[in-house]
Amino acid sequence: MKNYKIALIKGDGIGPEIVDEAVKVLDAVSSCCGFHFEYEEALMGGCAYDITGDPLPQETINISLNSDAVLFGAIGGEQWDSLPREKRPESGLLRFRKELGVYANLRPAVVYDELVNASSLKPEIVKGVDIMVVRELIGGIYFGEPKGRDENRGWNTMVYTRDEIVRIAHQAFKIAMTRSKRVCSIDKANVLDVSQLWREVVEDVATDYPEVELSHMYVDNAAMQLIRDPRQFDVMLTGNIFGDILSDEASMLSGSIGLLPSASVGAKIGVYEPIHGSAPDIAGQGIANPIATIASASMMLRYALGENAAADKIDEAIKKALSEGYRTQDLAQFDAKEVCSTSEMGSIIANYI
Amino acid sequence: MKNYKIALIKGDGIGPEIVDEAVKVLDAVSSCCGFHFEYEEALMGGCAYDITGDPLPQETINISLNSDAVLFGAIGGEQWDSLPREKRPESGLLRFRKELGVYANLRPAVVYDELVNASSLKPEIVKGVDIMVVRELIGGIYFGEPKGRDENRGWNTMVYTRDEIVRIAHQAFKIAMTRSKRVCSIDKANVLDVSQLWREVVEDVATDYPEVELSHMYVDNAAMQLIRDPRQFDVMLTGNIFGDILSDEASMLSGSIGLLPSASVGAKIGVYEPIHGSAPDIAGQGIANPIATIASASMMLRYALGENAAADKIDEAIKKALSEGYRTQDLAQFDAKEVCSTSEMGSIIANYI
Ligand SMILES: CC(C)[C@H](C(=O)O)[C@@H](O)C(=O)O
Ligand SMILES: CC(C)[C@H](C(=O)O)[C@@H](O)C(=O)O
Repeated sequence: MKNYKIALIKGDGIGPEIVDEAVKVLDAVSSCCGFHFEYEEALMGGCAYDITGDPLPQETINISLNSDAVLFGAIGGEQWDSLPREKRPESGLLRFRKELGVYANLRPAVVYDELVNASSLKPEIVKGVDIMVVRELIGGIYFGEPKGRDENRGWNTMVYTRDEIVRIAHQAFKIAMTRSKRVCSIDKANVLDVSQLWREVVEDVATDYPEVELSHMYVDNAAMQLIRDPRQFDVMLTGNIFGDILSDEASMLSGSIGLLPSASVGAKIGVYEPIHGSAPDIAGQGIANPIATIASASMMLRYALGENAAADKIDEAIKKALSEGYRTQDLAQFDAKEVCSTSEMGSIIANYI
Repeated sequence: MKNYKIALIKGDGIGPEIVDEAVKVLDAVSSCCGFHFEYEEALMGGCAYDITGDPLPQETINISLNSDAVLFGAIGGEQWDSLPREKRPESGLLRFRKELGVYANLRPAVVYDELVNASSLKPEIVKGVDIMVVRELIGGIYFGEPKGRDENRGWNTMVYTRDEIVRIAHQAFKIAMTRSKRVCSIDKANVLDVSQLWREVVEDVATDYPEVELSHMYVDNAAMQLIRDPRQFDVMLTGNIFGDILSDEASMLSGSIGLLPSASVGAKIGVYEPIHGSAPDIAGQGIANPIATIASASMMLRYALGENAAADKIDEAIKKALSEGYRTQDLAQFDAKEVCSTSEMGSIIANYI
């Protein structure tokens, strides 16, 4: 029987609760699909700092590199916000991405038919939205040098090299080939030099994918078009900071960030995590929505392990739970037949498998 | 009788048509409010390049500096997109802002009750939205050095000095004092050094305005919150690129970018312009919505000339035209009683004054 090693990084806030439910679902799917999971837990974020003094202990990197994939919850919380920058949970996460080399962040923004009313946008605008944001994750202004600050000045550098753009563009085009074959590349080429290079290189890479239709859009316009007519988008290809902003905006089209997963890939080991944060305000109450994490586990099966049938089973089970009217508290007002707790939702989805 | 000198920069595309309507309305209001306008036209953008070889001729700067305020239409069009960067219409606009020193871009995002159904968001989410985005306009990554590109690398610098942040923060707090007294400052302080300085300086400036409530929000979260619950915002204070993105997003809440004005201030002479672009695809057809430009003329009266009564008259006339059901084509599906042309809309509003 195939055996997969999964590094579990539960993190802070609601992280542990939601990862536990994803594990429940993974175990259900493995026992019926003929493989086995071996989990190893590792620390990252505030909890790692509290125990080891470092938000990203070396051991976490080792465990992750020694696994087949990383399933990650969320990190952060107010109590760590006043620490020096390099001790803060977010710094651990940024270093983690860089150490693993996961340069491609895939963030689907999908509106479930069952929850089309949960959106703050009109149902006729968001019904059927199915966008994949492909965000560059370990370059751009997040990591560019020089950077720093003194008393009177602060500076960061938005920099991209041709190679960095080439590899993320290939990811976007490859994904587009499995979807509606349209890539919209986002930049600010009318103002930024780095965006001019971005646009040129994306054009170059596009010639390898003659079936894919490529368009370009300025980031300010994209922020507008995502609200005006989100269905115009299939794959959106972006740099790090533009992708940070636009993927959060896109995720809100679904009405709840408790539903959407993400994958960070491009290296030997990928990281799978919900797009939402650690929500310290509701941690430990058993009311967090575990669906985003369960959907992340499904992405892990599909992208990291190639277990597409198992991934399909999870996706179907999630849909079934939603269409049967099960809702965690965050979605209780939207056609709920029964409001359930974090762990009840996990069990319901596991049972449907 | 008071005499105001107005520099008119009509620009490209629909620019001339919409500025003409604003002039019609300005003339109506001046003849009934006891002052007089003297207009001088100046060239900027593609039309300036075509005639002079420069998208921003020195004469345009001179005329503007020699006026009491600048009323501006829009610039740009595909035929100029392949010119070398410094010849492109946008470069003229960026240099113009810098030459005039208008560091504060005020972009109201207001949802008219009459058009609450025009939004792609649900009416119950956007009804009553009244946000003022205060965007830093002549610093940040738009102008930061070093910048450039070669074959294999592109780079720009996001830099802010304490002084630049101090002055834009004062603008935001002063405006908040005339409104609901809440400032939300947008940054990415969990990642960017320049944002850490931004946040610190904004905190400092806030101590001068004890009545104003200050909060901070990460830019990715702000992009989300603007859709989730836009009414939570009063004044949003942002740097140049974050403001570019968020103000476009915010303006879309209104359902039409044909309605919203903007002001660029902070120096001796301010620039007043619609937030939309030059829309070359509909230029010359008499179907453009002139309301954003007319509302910009109202902002000019209020902020540049201190003619608040006259500004109020224009704002009321716009509301009246909308509530009587007059609509230009862009809003024809939203409770229109009569669809009218660009110049008919200008005349209707002028008549209501
Ligand atoms: C927590 C933060 C550093 C992070 C980012 O900006 O990348 C988050 O917003 C995300 O999108 O994963
Ligand atoms: C045309 C462009 C350079 C400009 C900007 O990015 O500032 C525009 O988007 C705006 O917001 O006025």
